[in-house]
Amino acid sequence: MFEVKVYVSLKEGVLDPQGAAVQNSLHHLGYEGVEEVRIGKVMTLQIQGSREKVETEVKDMCEKLLANTVIEDYRYEIEEVVSQ
Amino acid sequence: MFEVKVYVSLKEGVLDPQGAAVQNSLHHLGYEGVEEVRIGKVMTLQIQGSREKVETEVKDMCEKLLANTVIEDYRYEIEEVVSQ
Repeated sequence: MFEVKVYVSLKEGVLDPQGAAVQNSLHHLGYEGVEEVRIGKVMTLQIQGSREKVETEVKDMCEKLLANTVIEDYRYEIEEVVSQ
Repeated sequence: MFEVKVYVSLKEGVLDPQGAAVQNSLHHLGYEGVEEVRIGKVMTLQIQGSREKVETEVKDMCEKLLANTVIEDYRYEIEEVVSQ
């Protein structure tokens, strides 16, 4: 079993209205020092299979479904889960 | 200037319908080995101020706005950005 963390974030230059809304709210709460907020996703997947299979599959999943590669970048970490 | 990464995830035991939907879609695409998907957020903030101020402010921001502590956990990393 492998635990895979996929981090998906908007590419530089792509507007992040959700981040802008959070920044705005933080300013209203008095946190004037906040100059930028960008919001991304972390997806944590538990996957069965061999390491090779998981590695090729995860890249595929990102390209096909987990990220929109036109406007988003992704990176991932694969870690084996040793059951006790 | 500091770059702060805030990771917000649903607490264990809290249902994650968005994660379940992604898992379902992955199964439909043929990735049968995926046993669980949980989805969280990463917020990347650029903040001006001293390290002490940023540290106390970030904890406050998480408690007040960035996380819903009833159903979500958060953790953060603070890194100084040295301008060149």
